Amino acid sequence: MLLKLRKNLAPADRDALFGLCRELGLEPRTLTGVSGGVELVDLIPTDKAGVDPARTLSLLNDQFAVASIVDAGPASERFARANGQPDTIVRVGEAIFGGGHVSLVAGPCSVDEEDVLLDVARRVKAAGATLLRGGVHKPRTSPYSFQGLGDDGLALLGRVREEVGIAVVTEVLEPGDIAKTREVCDMLQIGSRNMINTPLLREVAKAGMPVLLKRGMTATSKEFLLAAEYLLSGGCKEVVLCERGIRGFDSATRNVLDLGTVAHLKQATHLPVIVDPSHAAGRADLIRPLARAGVAVGCDGLIVEVHPYPMRAKSDAEQAISPDLFAEIAGDALTMCRALGKTLIAPSADSVATPEAAAPLNYIS
Amino acid sequence: MLLKLRKNLAPADRDALFGLCRELGLEPRTLTGVSGGVELVDLIPTDKAGVDPARTLSLLNDQFAVASIVDAGPASERFARANGQPDTIVRVGEAIFGGGHVSLVAGPCSVDEEDVLLDVARRVKAAGATLLRGGVHKPRTSPYSFQGLGDDGLALLGRVREEVGIAVVTEVLEPGDIAKTREVCDMLQIGSRNMINTPLLREVAKAGMPVLLKRGMTATSKEFLLAAEYLLSGGCKEVVLCERGIRGFDSATRNVLDLGTVAHLKQATHLPVIVDPSHAAGRADLIRPLARAGVAVGCDGLIVEVHPYPMRAKSDAEQAISPDLFAEIAGDALTMCRALGKTLIAPSADSVATPEAAAPLNYIS
Amino acid sequence: MLLKLRKNLAPADRDALFGLCRELGLEPRTLTGVSGGVELVDLIPTDKAGVDPARTLSLLNDQFAVASIVDAGPASERFARANGQPDTIVRVGEAIFGGGHVSLVAGPCSVDEEDVLLDVARRVKAAGATLLRGGVHKPRTSPYSFQGLGDDGLALLGRVREEVGIAVVTEVLEPGDIAKTREVCDMLQIGSRNMINTPLLREVAKAGMPVLLKRGMTATSKEFLLAAEYLLSGGCKEVVLCERGIRGFDSATRNVLDLGTVAHLKQATHLPVIVDPSHAAGRADLIRPLARAGVAVGCDGLIVEVHPYPMRAKSDAEQAISPDLFAEIAGDALTMCRALGKTLIAPSADSVATPEAAAPLNYIS
Amino acid sequence: MLLKLRKNLAPADRDALFGLCRELGLEPRTLTGVSGGVELVDLIPTDKAGVDPARTLSLLNDQFAVASIVDAGPASERFARANGQPDTIVRVGEAIFGGGHVSLVAGPCSVDEEDVLLDVARRVKAAGATLLRGGVHKPRTSPYSFQGLGDDGLALLGRVREEVGIAVVTEVLEPGDIAKTREVCDMLQIGSRNMINTPLLREVAKAGMPVLLKRGMTATSKEFLLAAEYLLSGGCKEVVLCERGIRGFDSATRNVLDLGTVAHLKQATHLPVIVDPSHAAGRADLIRPLARAGVAVGCDGLIVEVHPYPMRAKSDAEQAISPDLFAEIAGDALTMCRALGKTLIAPSADSVATPEAAAPLNYIS
Repeated sequence: MLLKLRKNLAPADRDALFGLCRELGLEPRTLTGVSGGVELVDLIPTDKAGVDPARTLSLLNDQFAVASIVDAGPASERFARANGQPDTIVRVGEAIFGGGHVSLVAGPCSVDEEDVLLDVARRVKAAGATLLRGGVHKPRTSPYSFQGLGDDGLALLGRVREEVGIAVVTEVLEPGDIAKTREVCDMLQIGSRNMINTPLLREVAKAGMPVLLKRGMTATSKEFLLAAEYLLSGGCKEVVLCERGIRGFDSATRNVLDLGTVAHLKQATHLPVIVDPSHAAGRADLIRPLARAGVAVGCDGLIVEVHPYPMRAKSDAEQAISPDLFAEIAGDALTMCRALGKTLIAPSADSVATPEAAAPLNYIS
Repeated sequence: MLLKLRKNLAPADRDALFGLCRELGLEPRTLTGVSGGVELVDLIPTDKAGVDPARTLSLLNDQFAVASIVDAGPASERFARANGQPDTIVRVGEAIFGGGHVSLVAGPCSVDEEDVLLDVARRVKAAGATLLRGGVHKPRTSPYSFQGLGDDGLALLGRVREEVGIAVVTEVLEPGDIAKTREVCDMLQIGSRNMINTPLLREVAKAGMPVLLKRGMTATSKEFLLAAEYLLSGGCKEVVLCERGIRGFDSATRNVLDLGTVAHLKQATHLPVIVDPSHAAGRADLIRPLARAGVAVGCDGLIVEVHPYPMRAKSDAEQAISPDLFAEIAGDALTMCRALGKTLIAPSADSVATPEAAAPLNYIS
Repeated sequence: MLLKLRKNLAPADRDALFGLCRELGLEPRTLTGVSGGVELVDLIPTDKAGVDPARTLSLLNDQFAVASIVDAGPASERFARANGQPDTIVRVGEAIFGGGHVSLVAGPCSVDEEDVLLDVARRVKAAGATLLRGGVHKPRTSPYSFQGLGDDGLALLGRVREEVGIAVVTEVLEPGDIAKTREVCDMLQIGSRNMINTPLLREVAKAGMPVLLKRGMTATSKEFLLAAEYLLSGGCKEVVLCERGIRGFDSATRNVLDLGTVAHLKQATHLPVIVDPSHAAGRADLIRPLARAGVAVGCDGLIVEVHPYPMRAKSDAEQAISPDLFAEIAGDALTMCRALGKTLIAPSADSVATPEAAAPLNYIS
Repeated sequence: MLLKLRKNLAPADRDALFGLCRELGLEPRTLTGVSGGVELVDLIPTDKAGVDPARTLSLLNDQFAVASIVDAGPASERFARANGQPDTIVRVGEAIFGGGHVSLVAGPCSVDEEDVLLDVARRVKAAGATLLRGGVHKPRTSPYSFQGLGDDGLALLGRVREEVGIAVVTEVLEPGDIAKTREVCDMLQIGSRNMINTPLLREVAKAGMPVLLKRGMTATSKEFLLAAEYLLSGGCKEVVLCERGIRGFDSATRNVLDLGTVAHLKQATHLPVIVDPSHAAGRADLIRPLARAGVAVGCDGLIVEVHPYPMRAKSDAEQAISPDLFAEIAGDALTMCRALGKTLIAPSADSVATPEAAAPLNYIS
């Protein structure tokens, strides 16, 4: 590692920095012969260098005496994709994310009536979804908006999961939600607003379950990956990242779907990355093209809000699409996967618990 | 209230909307004679109109059948300043926010060593601060950064509070922090990352304490006020809002201090609004001019990060300023308050528990 | 059209507004029986209503007395896609944009040496490009950066155009550039920085040539379309819009490619829309996936920076790609077009003037 | 200067870089003994080092072979404030910007009727303005909005300038505007949309007049300063920078007034910096507090849109304020200047050509 020191550093401050380096198992060596009074320090690992390199980098980066880190050495965070490292593959029920596998997640924004949820679950499964989404605790901007059914919603999710034979992902808003949620769900979601809720990240990391981590509305890709690092360093191995649009300045779309960051993440990390076109667009009519673009850019899955009667959805009605439109999106995803030589995962026929469910499309599975 | 309906509405959907209106105590009346197929509905309050008008507005706004709310009627949220309504005044220890009173909050980003905290508390009080800030749970971007002392930090804050005679504000990160924090602190802070952490807002609202609510990094002013509404509707009456910079695109400053929104908030709400120039600038050398601008625009207080040895601060060292520079900022604030006919609150001499503390400046108090 | 008036309007101001409406051929009729003091005015076209409806809307929108336009009536700008209106198709040389046709534009950021330009032109044509891009006047952030070859570059573009048999698009920076540029080019480009340079838009509109209009770095989609309206209302009929990334907050990518806006534009306007993944990414390694996503979302073409020796490009070297990588992008575009049932336009074999050029790929043409 | 080279550089590319360095009068010397394969190159000025250091830095920064510039050496652009360098002072008529002098610029957004302009000019001068603003060429978002009076407006500005005895600043949109504008005006304005219109910057630089350069809507401070560098390197010595709000995400204010950047600019450059609260707020009711904050942060002047009948202004009516409110803003500015030990420049009584003008306030002058 190579540091540039702040100019006009007091000797005591330089000594303090060098002491910290030695504690971290790194011997500082000042480079000589640099013109213009620039002070560069090369850090050479010693026998004692047992400390986590990511922790070392973070600690040195926080030192005021360090003007900049000229060279950080090899990547060291758990999220980082080493040269040639393959994708981490995350499996949730029948869904597979990463390693050339693309899976579809679908369901209503919020869980409300049982027959509606049952209907949508059957129909999105029939169309190709392998994971059902549905919120029971909704973090709404206004205290007067519908806040979700809470525990009743969880029970309902559990019943539909059994009846339809589909794995379920739902959001947890606080550590207290985790225990009861894991009884009926297969994956925990951390929503956009909670991406950097560190107490929640730490508790979710211990749950022993796959986690869907949504990007914060103005998180940089580095901040997003460091939020995943809270999960990975806390013991969770199955993290799926989700890009859902960043805050923009144009009200024509709700958010700005940032597919450049998806392309960047696919290089920077070995974790799977999925795309949420529903929250990005905020408009039902833009979801299909954005879903197609998400698969084309190389994401490992889609998560889409589907409601049998979009107009009556109790939250985010503007962006809910019908099961029929979802089936078209699934068809597009299949076409895109074939074009890219990737596999779109389809639910197996015998996972369908009820006769009403239509036969799955002829997917590569 | 006046609604514009979505075009080509099915009769069943119109009926459902009208039913909801009547449930809410509002009789819908379609305006006749509008050209171009535009459907406008005037809502007339009936005897049953007992429901919270803010809740009504929010519910109707969420209906897909409603294209837009043409006129919302009189302001109805608890945060809203009615015509001519005076400021809410919030008192915390000797600090007074609102109603022409300006108070200074200062202290280290994070609490670490006891003698350092004691020193900074005495010196910021001597310079004019009436409220000590200091983080014990730090929500850091990287899991490898210093995360605060936790409960040890709380105990330390409690001892310094007694010894120096100054009220204390500190951040709570999760509902579980509230009980122990209220034992030693005078005000709870909800940080920027948690502005819309609804479970936390709901629990903090019940704590019976004044709350300092920081604006989220990309919250609109409406979203910020609705986060305050969670507190107000949950029973908290003493909310102080804090603008701390929004995310920008220029790395020359850490964030963009949005004083236009401070000016807007002073009109839109009766709640006090303070300014945090430290997190906005992220650079010690810009804090003094931004603090001056904050008071000039009409804010009700400042919150500033102060550390006796800024280079050794364990977090946010780049933006920590020395107690001497804080004294200059306090002097500026006094000058600004005098120019604006406002009162800068000074700590009373007898609140100082120890002889080492310098005499307070000759403030209006 | 339906207006909501500002509250507490003076009678003289209402009269002035109504007078203006009548001048515009619209009879104002105040709706009666609206509760809460809300004043709504319906505007009924009279016989005199000959004025441009877009101009009318714009004028009324600028009136202070108008609080909001509740309903604007049918779309009226030239850019707007009426219900069911087909795409405008723009042809430049062999390139066809719109109506299900996708064309590829490629070439160096800036024109420098003749043999380099000749080489890149032959190779991008061989790979499937039907239009050569290359800047001769470069609007650079720093006055000390390479500013382009100017008139020498134009002559060079002209020679390469003849020799390779490929149409050429280049940017004009000021009205004075237009005359000489049209002598050697087939399409004029208005760059991102000049999207709302109204004197330039007005003059370019009169040139009788197809125009490539790039979106400004923080233009809303409405502002972008209104810039196109300057061209359309000034007499230009062949406008191709180009999304090239908006300013974001994350330095991992140069800009944020806004494909949600591309999807929105494809609905809002009949004009073709192309995507520039090079300026969006600013990194050679992200251009291929973003190009794929652009075609998948439904754009009508791609514009890509290609240089035979990217490291030696005199501007934007970081985002230049090799002709070989461009050929892979062209292959992806063909795959995507086939999947979507669209036609990727290929250069005809006999348009190639020189024997060195490789045979074009077996495109749909 | 110290460079870090890109990894795995081909010898030919290193040689090419080193050759360029030597052409620029800099001898490259590779630092030895750096661990981890990092290649650092120190550049030592030789006798030949006569080249502009800013140009050198810009050229090296554009080289692909250069991974980063570890240390740029001393500041070298013309805009940069060297250690201890005093403010550049710009005088326009009676206005003085910089060096502790604050001046007020006021007038209508666009020039329309002569008696209106005469009235507003007299009244803003009476209230303390030393420079009259007024647009004759308006760069409007829509081609259907009022675009200004053009040459008639210039003549009108000239007559009012003589009659009232006040210097005038107006915007030029294209090089062709410069000659006729300088006949009747004292300062040329480059608007926000044209901040990086390089052909315009180059021509304006040659006009031999003071220039008011407005920040682009999403220009970083560095981009803003480099736009000023086009003027300075082109021969203009009197550049006044103007912060007018950057694009934000909250429609409560039109733009986000970025006073942190004003504080940064006052350190980074010796050029005067003024603040435009009118375009930032976009709402008449927020202009006064923002103007106060602008002076408090340390700006060298204010530019405010004033119209005798705001409701009838032909452009930007929402943000126009009355002459009476402007007089209050001028009073605030005086109070702020006194508090900060700065001088608010007042028009001299004998500069007033007509008896109708009120006596100027008792300013420090």
